[in-house]
Amino acid sequence: MLNWLVIFAPIAIVLHHFAPERYELIFLTAAIGILPFAAWLGRATEQLADRSGEGVGGLLNATFGNAAELIIALAALRAGLYDVVKATIAGSIVGNILLVLGASMLAGGTRYPEQHFNLTGARAQATMLTLAAIALIIPAAYHGLVGEFYVGGQKPLSISISLTLLVVYCMFLLFSLWTHPSFFSGSNVPDNETSSQPWPLSWSVTVLAVCTAAIAWLSEILVGTIEPTARALGLSDIFIGVFVIAILGNAAEHASAVTAAMKNRMDLSLSIAIGSSIQVALFVAPLLVLASLIVGPEPMNLLFGKGLVLAVFVAVVITGQIASDGRSDWLKGVQLLAVYLILGLAFFLTP
Amino acid sequence: MLNWLVIFAPIAIVLHHFAPERYELIFLTAAIGILPFAAWLGRATEQLADRSGEGVGGLLNATFGNAAELIIALAALRAGLYDVVKATIAGSIVGNILLVLGASMLAGGTRYPEQHFNLTGARAQATMLTLAAIALIIPAAYHGLVGEFYVGGQKPLSISISLTLLVVYCMFLLFSLWTHPSFFSGSNVPDNETSSQPWPLSWSVTVLAVCTAAIAWLSEILVGTIEPTARALGLSDIFIGVFVIAILGNAAEHASAVTAAMKNRMDLSLSIAIGSSIQVALFVAPLLVLASLIVGPEPMNLLFGKGLVLAVFVAVVITGQIASDGRSDWLKGVQLLAVYLILGLAFFLTP
Amino acid sequence: MLNWLVIFAPIAIVLHHFAPERYELIFLTAAIGILPFAAWLGRATEQLADRSGEGVGGLLNATFGNAAELIIALAALRAGLYDVVKATIAGSIVGNILLVLGASMLAGGTRYPEQHFNLTGARAQATMLTLAAIALIIPAAYHGLVGEFYVGGQKPLSISISLTLLVVYCMFLLFSLWTHPSFFSGSNVPDNETSSQPWPLSWSVTVLAVCTAAIAWLSEILVGTIEPTARALGLSDIFIGVFVIAILGNAAEHASAVTAAMKNRMDLSLSIAIGSSIQVALFVAPLLVLASLIVGPEPMNLLFGKGLVLAVFVAVVITGQIASDGRSDWLKGVQLLAVYLILGLAFFLTP
Repeated sequence: MLNWLVIFAPIAIVLHHFAPERYELIFLTAAIGILPFAAWLGRATEQLADRSGEGVGGLLNATFGNAAELIIALAALRAGLYDVVKATIAGSIVGNILLVLGASMLAGGTRYPEQHFNLTGARAQATMLTLAAIALIIPAAYHGLVGEFYVGGQKPLSISISLTLLVVYCMFLLFSLWTHPSFFSGSNVPDNETSSQPWPLSWSVTVLAVCTAAIAWLSEILVGTIEPTARALGLSDIFIGVFVIAILGNAAEHASAVTAAMKNRMDLSLSIAIGSSIQVALFVAPLLVLASLIVGPEPMNLLFGKGLVLAVFVAVVITGQIASDGRSDWLKGVQLLAVYLILGLAFFLTP
Repeated sequence: MLNWLVIFAPIAIVLHHFAPERYELIFLTAAIGILPFAAWLGRATEQLADRSGEGVGGLLNATFGNAAELIIALAALRAGLYDVVKATIAGSIVGNILLVLGASMLAGGTRYPEQHFNLTGARAQATMLTLAAIALIIPAAYHGLVGEFYVGGQKPLSISISLTLLVVYCMFLLFSLWTHPSFFSGSNVPDNETSSQPWPLSWSVTVLAVCTAAIAWLSEILVGTIEPTARALGLSDIFIGVFVIAILGNAAEHASAVTAAMKNRMDLSLSIAIGSSIQVALFVAPLLVLASLIVGPEPMNLLFGKGLVLAVFVAVVITGQIASDGRSDWLKGVQLLAVYLILGLAFFLTP
Repeated sequence: MLNWLVIFAPIAIVLHHFAPERYELIFLTAAIGILPFAAWLGRATEQLADRSGEGVGGLLNATFGNAAELIIALAALRAGLYDVVKATIAGSIVGNILLVLGASMLAGGTRYPEQHFNLTGARAQATMLTLAAIALIIPAAYHGLVGEFYVGGQKPLSISISLTLLVVYCMFLLFSLWTHPSFFSGSNVPDNETSSQPWPLSWSVTVLAVCTAAIAWLSEILVGTIEPTARALGLSDIFIGVFVIAILGNAAEHASAVTAAMKNRMDLSLSIAIGSSIQVALFVAPLLVLASLIVGPEPMNLLFGKGLVLAVFVAVVITGQIASDGRSDWLKGVQLLAVYLILGLAFFLTP
């Protein structure tokens, strides 16, 4: 469906070399050009996951599910655009639970008056999100309280919280894939359609490699145009990170979650939407902090701006409320989307 | 019951004309004089609602249920008392869920060891309140973060959030009156008593018109005395708005909700208490913001003081916790009232 | 089990008299020496409670359950170490719900895939915690908003909030012991083991008196060494209060709660862990505020530092989420412990 968008990739590359001053155009084409590769990367990961049996497959999905975002973020990290990286992380957390989940509940709710999902798994995921929000609140609060006269503590705090999050994320995988998998599988009909025709292993690996390379290339191009594009459009690069890049990175998840909701498979929809947020918050973000010790021009910390922390907090609070009774309807979708819109307005109006 | 209080209305008017320096007395008599008109206004609305069938009737109740508050707030708006308007809005949100709901649960709990209400409807309403709290937190946070060096964003932010809230409120009415009405009606016995004798249409309309006019007149008088009264009593006009005026405006709801709780009709009690808060937050407040573009001396924004935002946040958090398991007991009433008392103490001691 | 630790008590006393400059050693020995007395004090209270019938027994447990903490805090109060007292209170609230409950859920979860507890009682307790968090947030917010130009309001605010909390705590006892005791007793097997052999009354009273005296003596010694020890170790006395002293004071509860969880008696485990936090927040803390009017060099208020308030808020939020579905598993334990670790890291790195 998105395949034809692939033509934007060569356009971006050509523009980048021959018309590097057309920032907005390069940004736009590179951003759109990434989409089909991200979708194929997701498909290849799923193929490898299907082939590997449930446990390892879940692990593969949980590790490479946000590979596109990780690659873009690494490119931004190498360029030293820490604000953009953090904005993308926060935007991805917020976007998955407000926009993707909201759209899924709204779309599903227009077809079914009431939809159901596994209460216990949804609650475990919501608590994971709360933990993630706390892990972002504490460094920001620490900075606010002691930051002025003592900056030295932020680096060890960020590193140790990142390690804590990675350990908890592993525990969560252990829990959801091994000790309590039943909490995360609904009682709905299994989905026979997706596993239509398995790919040969060599094909999966090739697709994975090609897509990774293509996304990495386009990301380098994209990242270089963020700041001038933001300036030209009169937007903050925070807004670009939180809303534009994060939405791009999550486009594939978005489509899958909405499709699942419309097939009344809310457990899958929730797993994709909330699971993706958890993965970004507890796996991608700490990994980037640790990676920055090696890759970036200087270490990145977990100190997110107050606006980003508040956005994550607010999103996590309302998601916790919405996900905790095991049922959804269209109004829940509207409520989540309204919060996303309000946050979007505030970031859009921020200079 | 409250009818005889009507004599305070002419007293207020006489004092206003012949002894305008007796601020406290005018404030007191005008405030008390409003009460019976507000009660009759409510009754007339209900009569019109009963006459109109369930859907339109619910709409009428949802639109004019807080008419008295709206009229008082409009008077304060025209006088340019934005702080009082905002304090009244916040006080009304907080008062309905802490004082009115708390008193209802306590009163009901002294009669019945445990009372039940529709879990799904209560949760949908609690999420609405969370949305309302977020809609107040974001402008305040925006001001705190960018306000110092960029004031221009606050006005478009307030207007666009107000429009968002009005749309969501319409969606909520659609949801509760049309697509999912069963979530909001309990399994309790229907209340035959109230619909004893329907009024003739002309009588309903006359009462509506007379009460509206009387409340508008008294509000003008009341509003002019708020500031000198506050100064004379050593209170802030914020305190007067949050506690005195908001309690007055909600007196009718208060009586109905407690009565319903004592008849073990907790669904009705919750609908009145939480529903009233939702209406003020998602309908009255944004309407006033938009009205101020035409009526007031200058536009009013959604930027509430930090104390008010915190009060709303705290009230919404504990209400969400209390309303989310579909049952109530007297301790829940005590808990809500305790939070109201703590907030009251803090505002009372604020200079 | 802990009995032999009693030998640290005389060591602390001897060191205190003959080597008062060995601060760290005195701190360590006094702290460890308090442990066995606290355990025996708890046992004596339970014996008196068993003897007194359910209602009065529950009251005794609820009043003297945190006696050790109260005695240590009173010693710190008399020494004017208000920061340490507040840190100990906050640390005790946070430690009981994050460390003690987390360890219990983890320990129980390693034995049983899923454990159950009474949903309604757990929710009532969680709401109590929310109330406690609000009671700490409001004075801090009040200070932040009006504190700079008006300090006079903090004292009456603290006293009136303290009185409110004490009244609510009495209501909670009335509720849990008298009107709704069934909410707090699980459907699990009764515990026959503990009531093996009742003590004679005179023995219970003697143990109570001796332990109280010993703890009081050791507390005086301990308190005098907190600040120099903190300075010598490069830690803040806040960290010592929140983590070291609070953990010591809760060691007995910790052991009982974990043991109960491993016997699959989660209702008891929750009652101990959350109940202890409630007792500290709604009984010990306000009592200390009122006691400081008589005992301390100057009155203590309820104005806790922002870091402490945030720690309590964060702990209460995640506990509310975890306790509200009536079941626990090992992942919930990990989640609670992770938040405790993150808070510990932040306080540890605070200079």
